[in-house]
Amino acid sequence: MQNQKPYYAVIFTSTQTEDIVGYSEMANQMETLAKTQKGYLGIESARNSVGITVSYWESLEAIKQWKQNSEHLFAQQRGREQWYNWYKVRICRVEREYEFEK
Amino acid sequence: MQNQKPYYAVIFTSTQTEDIVGYSEMANQMETLAKTQKGYLGIESARNSVGITVSYWESLEAIKQWKQNSEHLFAQQRGREQWYNWYKVRICRVEREYEFEK
Repeated sequence: MQNQKPYYAVIFTSTQTEDIVGYSEMANQMETLAKTQKGYLGIESARNSVGITVSYWESLEAIKQWKQNSEHLFAQQRGREQWYNWYKVRICRVEREYEFEK
Repeated sequence: MQNQKPYYAVIFTSTQTEDIVGYSEMANQMETLAKTQKGYLGIESARNSVGITVSYWESLEAIKQWKQNSEHLFAQQRGREQWYNWYKVRICRVEREYEFEK
């Protein structure tokens, strides 16, 4: 994930219902699919009481295309119907970054 | 966390060492301290193989002040010495957001 150009992050925060049948399969499937999308840069995910998935993209256009991907649209709909009590999506422009490695 | 004005997110992604003695106490302490800072808007956190903490701020200036807070500086140093193998910090401008609630 090297970059000089500005890039974008989508912060997806969610809480789940008790019915998570099929959820982890779909999550894996969507992660695999995201990686094939134009402008995809990376993804990071963790879940405890709240789930946070951050995906990184080259442009707002790439984010829009991914949002409108037909398989992804189906997953989003099933998410609202079945898996999620609540979610929030924030589209962000990464202004600056730094890293530490031991 | 209502807002009309643009605001900022700090995405802190990390992997830990095996020596996490004192980590969760410090994490709680820093979360409590962050909440008292000027310009603080909210925080969300989850950890599995990777930890993701996203904090939200009114301005870049508020983020800078929080980064330079003396207790926080001490925690950052101890983090690099003891708890973290790797971390990455991304300062982001939230461009757009939407929410779903069941």
